[in-house]
Amino acid sequence: MAVAPLAELRDEVADLLAQMCTAAATSLRNATVALRDNRGRLAAQVEAADKEIDDLRTRVEQIATTAMALHSPMAGNLRSVVSALRASDDIERMGDLASHVARAVQRCEDGHRIPDEARAVFVEMGEMGADMADKAAQVARTRDVLLAIELERDDDEMDRRLRSIFEMLLDRHWEHGIGAAVDVTLLARYYERFADHAVKVAKEIVYAVTGRTIAEVQAALDAGPQL
Amino acid sequence: MAVAPLAELRDEVADLLAQMCTAAATSLRNATVALRDNRGRLAAQVEAADKEIDDLRTRVEQIATTAMALHSPMAGNLRSVVSALRASDDIERMGDLASHVARAVQRCEDGHRIPDEARAVFVEMGEMGADMADKAAQVARTRDVLLAIELERDDDEMDRRLRSIFEMLLDRHWEHGIGAAVDVTLLARYYERFADHAVKVAKEIVYAVTGRTIAEVQAALDAGPQL
Repeated sequence: MAVAPLAELRDEVADLLAQMCTAAATSLRNATVALRDNRGRLAAQVEAADKEIDDLRTRVEQIATTAMALHSPMAGNLRSVVSALRASDDIERMGDLASHVARAVQRCEDGHRIPDEARAVFVEMGEMGADMADKAAQVARTRDVLLAIELERDDDEMDRRLRSIFEMLLDRHWEHGIGAAVDVTLLARYYERFADHAVKVAKEIVYAVTGRTIAEVQAALDAGPQL
Repeated sequence: MAVAPLAELRDEVADLLAQMCTAAATSLRNATVALRDNRGRLAAQVEAADKEIDDLRTRVEQIATTAMALHSPMAGNLRSVVSALRASDDIERMGDLASHVARAVQRCEDGHRIPDEARAVFVEMGEMGADMADKAAQVARTRDVLLAIELERDDDEMDRRLRSIFEMLLDRHWEHGIGAAVDVTLLARYYERFADHAVKVAKEIVYAVTGRTIAEVQAALDAGPQL
């Protein structure tokens, strides 16, 4: 069997990571639509789709191990491979969190419901989180490092939504009871964690595809056009 | 500079992982005492101690990268190194979760308090979680794979506590208001996640120190005394 060059394996990993991010984005979008419209069957599909993300992660691991074993890459390349593995772990977790949202929808169908005012914020959080995962996919596909930097700002936006959820909960006019408060608290946390992981993933992908940290890339950009 | 043999680097990583687990156990214990006795200053110490765990993780990463670069280990050894890195990521997260508990204590000091009945369960969850982290440390120190298997049972016990917290919250006699319900929900989740990570860590450490999965080790044990 011919040994694939390291650059080729790296492109293949970048492509798999992009696929994983896109799949995580789709899962979160579907889970959020299921939440918005109370669609239990769509929620069940999100859980089923999680296997696809897990399979992609296994392939990243195989390729990364092959790359290391066949090419004994030097320190810088090794850190790239490790970053790719870390990114795949984080994206897998994003898939899990989308599944958690989906499971909450299934729980709510036969129990207490999410109040409309919280649901509206979750719809926004779901769109934002999915867009963040799509941006991370684009970082993997295009090596556009500026997108990775953008993700930090998106995350601030997400944190603002989280705070508005907690303000809603702690407002003394909350009249939806404890069960709904518990569900809303957990859902808010799932969306927030999804976004946190997306930020981490984008950073790891930058390292995996460029061999440089975002800070290094930014410093080089600031230093002027010689890059 | 003399190149350290791979076995030596592996021992060094195992020792660092054990130190990280012990530090995470200490953090969770302190955070839980702070929660039990409403001690804001102790909670602040937990947050400060988190840096120690982060520094240990950086060292694991350095040694793992050195090991790979100097020895170009074969596929099996590579997976061990990758498992060690994954373990260090998970233990770092355990430290973060202990900090989250500590931060919740600091929030509660000047706000709503955790009801005694929930606090009692959290004290149990804190002890169990810290014991699990200690067991993971022992797996790293002694390669006692049976301890790693035990951790799965411990995690079931933890999940039972989590369910009892949710039953408490959803019981219609909950009279501590929404703020306390939100705090209790988040705390329950932090403890549960800490335990989940401890189970993962023990599995990763088994692979890192023996080069075999728990399932493989168990199959070998079941096959009889030829091991």
